Amino acid sequence: MKKFLNKPEDFVDETVRGILAAHPDQLACIGDDVRCIVRADAPRRGKVALATGGGSGHLPLFLGYVGTGLLDGCAVGGVFQSPSADRMFEVTKAIHGGRGVLYVFGNYGGDVMNFEMAAEMADMEDIRVESYAAAEDVASAPKGEEEKRRGVAGIFYVYKCAGAAAEDGADLDEVKRIAEKAGASVRSMGVALSPVIVPEVGRPSFTIGDDEMEIGMGIHGEPGIRRGKLLTADEVVTEMIGRIIPDLPFGRGDEVSVLVNGLGSTPKEELYIAYRKVAEILAGEGISVFKVYVGEFATSLEMAGFSISLLKLDGELKTLLAKPARTPFFEQAQL
Amino acid sequence: MKKFLNKPEDFVDETVRGILAAHPDQLACIGDDVRCIVRADAPRRGKVALATGGGSGHLPLFLGYVGTGLLDGCAVGGVFQSPSADRMFEVTKAIHGGRGVLYVFGNYGGDVMNFEMAAEMADMEDIRVESYAAAEDVASAPKGEEEKRRGVAGIFYVYKCAGAAAEDGADLDEVKRIAEKAGASVRSMGVALSPVIVPEVGRPSFTIGDDEMEIGMGIHGEPGIRRGKLLTADEVVTEMIGRIIPDLPFGRGDEVSVLVNGLGSTPKEELYIAYRKVAEILAGEGISVFKVYVGEFATSLEMAGFSISLLKLDGELKTLLAKPARTPFFEQAQL
Repeated sequence: MKKFLNKPEDFVDETVRGILAAHPDQLACIGDDVRCIVRADAPRRGKVALATGGGSGHLPLFLGYVGTGLLDGCAVGGVFQSPSADRMFEVTKAIHGGRGVLYVFGNYGGDVMNFEMAAEMADMEDIRVESYAAAEDVASAPKGEEEKRRGVAGIFYVYKCAGAAAEDGADLDEVKRIAEKAGASVRSMGVALSPVIVPEVGRPSFTIGDDEMEIGMGIHGEPGIRRGKLLTADEVVTEMIGRIIPDLPFGRGDEVSVLVNGLGSTPKEELYIAYRKVAEILAGEGISVFKVYVGEFATSLEMAGFSISLLKLDGELKTLLAKPARTPFFEQAQL
Repeated sequence: MKKFLNKPEDFVDETVRGILAAHPDQLACIGDDVRCIVRADAPRRGKVALATGGGSGHLPLFLGYVGTGLLDGCAVGGVFQSPSADRMFEVTKAIHGGRGVLYVFGNYGGDVMNFEMAAEMADMEDIRVESYAAAEDVASAPKGEEEKRRGVAGIFYVYKCAGAAAEDGADLDEVKRIAEKAGASVRSMGVALSPVIVPEVGRPSFTIGDDEMEIGMGIHGEPGIRRGKLLTADEVVTEMIGRIIPDLPFGRGDEVSVLVNGLGSTPKEELYIAYRKVAEILAGEGISVFKVYVGEFATSLEMAGFSISLLKLDGELKTLLAKPARTPFFEQAQL
């Protein structure tokens, strides 16, 4: 886990400076604060604006989803740390196009608190703000306690559907309804094989044996459901899907989109080996697949591992998922 | 370097089966041979067809570039092994749309030999074939011996420009001229921090100290220019760019596209930290940047490291680079 770094304390700012230097036609920062990122064409008048934010170290989360058909702005935190409420508020003001702002973020204590504070600041300036916290990791709390769950890679689906609705001109209540609907229709679970080194910390975030895996681990190394011997790819996928399917539940006749998300250092080859088994299990369950995403959508630096997310589709979500989108990290033509 | 695997000997076939299961609207195999991949709509009548091929373990190389605006087919080899001439020939027949076929591959002995044999087989069936071997890694042989150089991530630019020309209806001579021109206008260099484990081998491909890097290493672990203590990101980039710029040479007033390519487990954050320094150096040299690609374009399983490629643009290459493209691994709207 050697790293290409300059000073560890500059890791986040240098990353964002590189992103801004590479994509000046698509992204901009507010003033000289590289931790407040907005679309280069912000604010878009007459469009509901979407903002997100969260800790760094998860690219393309979070700022990688700022762009056409997705989000309007992002507050950038330190590695695995919430951004400040002040920065969320600055982003809010910069992207507000007159029709309100929806915050979409992961269900983590610091982010929830800071986005609440930012919403209060926005309210004092008569900017209407609504919020949605993604919380779809089935390993992070049992069924019945969904409000305690973490948000992981499935937040991509919330961004995608709500972002498409906003791009189409939907009002704030409608964009929020879509975010809630997409979030309620997605379930995720991950597995990790290795820890990460946060640059400013300089040592592994946890230890795990050479022959071990941890099923259900979070993207910051939060404890999972169980730790055990590393199984075959097919066994791991079978266990994960076996927890995801009954949770929503997904069932015969359903149509889904599947996201197999690499956490950092697991090669795409292994992600596709995993998807092969996902497809086999879904076919056996009578669940059909509309669109498959395989790649890195929400990472944890150089962690080895992956997550699986399933989104249950209806006509409305399918139409929104199929719309085009374009950011420096994600492009999709109309499906 | 723990892996999600079933039987190591099934690694390649299971990977490709996963890709075919995930993207059936875009890719297909020939008969039941998953190591012969073509566009789902092959053959495209009246279009020059492009084929590639090479060892597995480099996704999105090679088959990830099969799609609209890029390639028509790909022969898939074992991990780090050339595919057979027979498979290259099968792909050739399946994609030929009546206007000839261009082979574009990396300059490796096995691939060169097998594509030559495939071209001879095609000739016997009156399919006209031309070839271009990418060889742009400045670390792999000195200036003056360019024909001995390896092809690495810069082959992406050859695919992109030649693929766009073919999509536009250019004839085989013209598509070959574009491939040669793009290939002659690109220079690359890489740096590695860690070895890889080939699944069927089960042990690291080489050893490197915990505080060491190897500048100029190839994507199969071929020896580089020098091994030394791991430097800062800025120092590493400065050394790499310092060898790339004088090689073509690139100079004041030039316009380039830049590709910062992750080799596998190096996070996108670090790739952007590297690009930040690339942009600074190019600005200082009076070289302007048209389009920047940052991500994984040619990997080596879970190797830590990255490469930098520069493509010198003129009006013709810029127009071709800007054209849209769409594969399961790469999408670009018209720039």
